Amino acid sequence: MTSNFCRLGVAGLGTVGAGLLNFIAERPDFAPAGGRVVVTGVSARSRSRPRPVDISNLTWFDDPVALATSPETDVYVELIGGADGTAKASVEAALKAGKPVVTANKALIAEHGGDLARLAEANGVPLLFEAAVMGGVPAVKFMREAMVGDDVQSLAGILNGTCNYILSEMETTGRAFADVLADAQRLGYAEADPTMDVGGYDAAHKVTILAALAFGYAPNFSAAQVEGIDQLDLLDIKLAHDLGYRVKLIASAKLGADGVRVQVHPSLVPLDHPLAQAGGALNALFVESKRIGRIFLQGPGAGAGPTAAAVAADIADVMTGMVRPVFQKPAASLQQYGSVDPSDTLVRAYLRFMVKDEPGVIAAVSESLAEAGVSIESFLQKPAGQTDGVPIVMTTHSVAESVLAAAIDQIAGLATVLDRPRLLRIAQI
Amino acid sequence: MTSNFCRLGVAGLGTVGAGLLNFIAERPDFAPAGGRVVVTGVSARSRSRPRPVDISNLTWFDDPVALATSPETDVYVELIGGADGTAKASVEAALKAGKPVVTANKALIAEHGGDLARLAEANGVPLLFEAAVMGGVPAVKFMREAMVGDDVQSLAGILNGTCNYILSEMETTGRAFADVLADAQRLGYAEADPTMDVGGYDAAHKVTILAALAFGYAPNFSAAQVEGIDQLDLLDIKLAHDLGYRVKLIASAKLGADGVRVQVHPSLVPLDHPLAQAGGALNALFVESKRIGRIFLQGPGAGAGPTAAAVAADIADVMTGMVRPVFQKPAASLQQYGSVDPSDTLVRAYLRFMVKDEPGVIAAVSESLAEAGVSIESFLQKPAGQTDGVPIVMTTHSVAESVLAAAIDQIAGLATVLDRPRLLRIAQI
Repeated sequence: MTSNFCRLGVAGLGTVGAGLLNFIAERPDFAPAGGRVVVTGVSARSRSRPRPVDISNLTWFDDPVALATSPETDVYVELIGGADGTAKASVEAALKAGKPVVTANKALIAEHGGDLARLAEANGVPLLFEAAVMGGVPAVKFMREAMVGDDVQSLAGILNGTCNYILSEMETTGRAFADVLADAQRLGYAEADPTMDVGGYDAAHKVTILAALAFGYAPNFSAAQVEGIDQLDLLDIKLAHDLGYRVKLIASAKLGADGVRVQVHPSLVPLDHPLAQAGGALNALFVESKRIGRIFLQGPGAGAGPTAAAVAADIADVMTGMVRPVFQKPAASLQQYGSVDPSDTLVRAYLRFMVKDEPGVIAAVSESLAEAGVSIESFLQKPAGQTDGVPIVMTTHSVAESVLAAAIDQIAGLATVLDRPRLLRIAQI
Repeated sequence: MTSNFCRLGVAGLGTVGAGLLNFIAERPDFAPAGGRVVVTGVSARSRSRPRPVDISNLTWFDDPVALATSPETDVYVELIGGADGTAKASVEAALKAGKPVVTANKALIAEHGGDLARLAEANGVPLLFEAAVMGGVPAVKFMREAMVGDDVQSLAGILNGTCNYILSEMETTGRAFADVLADAQRLGYAEADPTMDVGGYDAAHKVTILAALAFGYAPNFSAAQVEGIDQLDLLDIKLAHDLGYRVKLIASAKLGADGVRVQVHPSLVPLDHPLAQAGGALNALFVESKRIGRIFLQGPGAGAGPTAAAVAADIADVMTGMVRPVFQKPAASLQQYGSVDPSDTLVRAYLRFMVKDEPGVIAAVSESLAEAGVSIESFLQKPAGQTDGVPIVMTTHSVAESVLAAAIDQIAGLATVLDRPRLLRIAQI
């Protein structure tokens, strides 16, 4: 990189890419370490698609790999997305060519972060990805740079704004998941194919990255236990509320004696907890560490403005000349954490059974739970509604997942139980 | 600095200094960019005072300036405190000798930050002060590094844990300020001379630093409008609560057409606002910016663990070799922001008048306010208590401080008003 001039090659010109081009045109001297930033080359799927930014005076590349390795590119900015394909190929090519890389691609880092970190460090160039997690909230910088004087023990938060918006809407409007999702798609808050978001995979990518940074491992996306909100019934949101909880999609990571446990689950959060109060498309994160204690971060997790600002901050960091490992340890020594067997994990659970409205049913369910060793903390029976059967709802004391699963299986087999029992975990935060 | 070895000279061995020495003894390889960190020299007021850390094998310096400039010191860590005296002299000496400086000293940076930044940059060395603001919460790094891709418009938060603890205790126990302060001093939560904390000056130092980083100016402590909690009556905490507010010491900074306004005031925050819910010794901060929107940070603002962790993170940053301005712009071009005339500032106010319990009093007060152009939003009259007179309390719509002051003066002169009227501002966050 020449010292007074940083030339960017930007691949991917969607919302974030266009936001970045606009910001840099407006504020080319934004990097406080000095130097003017200019976009010299761009690449995207379609050259002619209408965009909120003029690209006619920029060099066009059909192939992002050619852009990544162009002699005119000082820093390669990857905003294509996707764990593989041209995103991965172009990032690898840039790193091999000794170009610093800035990316917003959570899937790429969560699924290939360890390999890419090795490539980056072998070639002596930074690989930065602030925009991959929590949009405008600097969770990556926080975890990588601010927490080096401490040992992170656990983290838990709301990392997917689309799911949080859908859950908030379901609760406030009393509409079912599919209804609210269709609206969110119309409004542009959810993708045409919403699986990554509502299936929990996007949150899992993000928490995988945070876990790797927090605990000093290479990310291991395949070790995450993932459950989305797509199977969630409105009834459980209402009943949880009656018990003093709000349902949130909680992504968490915990370092234990048996390794790193990374989970994404729709979870019950007490109504007065800060995570329960983060509504709409907000993202929020609690981090617990040995010396500092608990830190809470909250802000907009997506959108052109916040995400482009995060990309710009990474570009400014590249221009400081700093050299530090991509994760917490030199990549050559980085291990991937393994999966933790979830069956031993202790949880507190919310259980809902739809039962026939007849004598002895509650006794039978309670007896099955007691026999399995599941201890009940609170219990709620609602009057029969329009549906068949009566919901009985309970929360449990702490119990091993395997014990809980066995008890649920047994109860599901009772003749008086009408529907698949529903299990939601109570967030331990 | 040699590449595999970073030798620290640490001046000041109070809680934070001892915490830092312990951490480095335990984790000498904490800096992810590589290199072992060792403490080689120390200085403090007393060599023999009992400490929770062994300093017998470290070189002792009676004079911090000698430690700062010693050939054995690669990075000088200043934990003495105070805006002037040996803290300032030793930091200046270190910078002139080309040594990077890490400090936790908010007074020093708030009162001399511009000059020290020029000295640091002229000598090509970093000057870092993460631990000066919000302890373990990386507010400085956030403002200096994460917000470069955006324009900060305002910030407001709780930056003094001692005041927040005292206010929380007053509200929950119903005890008066002096009582709670005495307890806090016994417990070590407040200093023997509590003026810096309860007078609002500590919070003013911190918000001055954040304002400088946020808006790209040199800090100007003398421009801050400061009011502490030492004149606060328990009665106003109770009455504010009846109106749906909690009293917090809010430090804020805002960039307007007329310049930078930096204020510290006991302020009313709506009970359901996140800042109202940050109790005990917590620190919390809202930052509002043009593109990202609103970000919220919360965590422990003091204590050995959090503060030492922040100092360690700065040391790790020095070891990355990064070069960036101390504030948002090169120090040579840094201007100090001026003071804003507060008389034009618009506020919403809480007013409490102690009046004689007789007919016509409320009419007289209301008339004075109406004549002055102060519009009332809500009104509360409580029955007479054990004290003389009856409190009447109101909140106003937005009004210029000068108009409000004139109205209060006039009402204070009414024969039926028994005591100095009390004014608290309603936080605009």
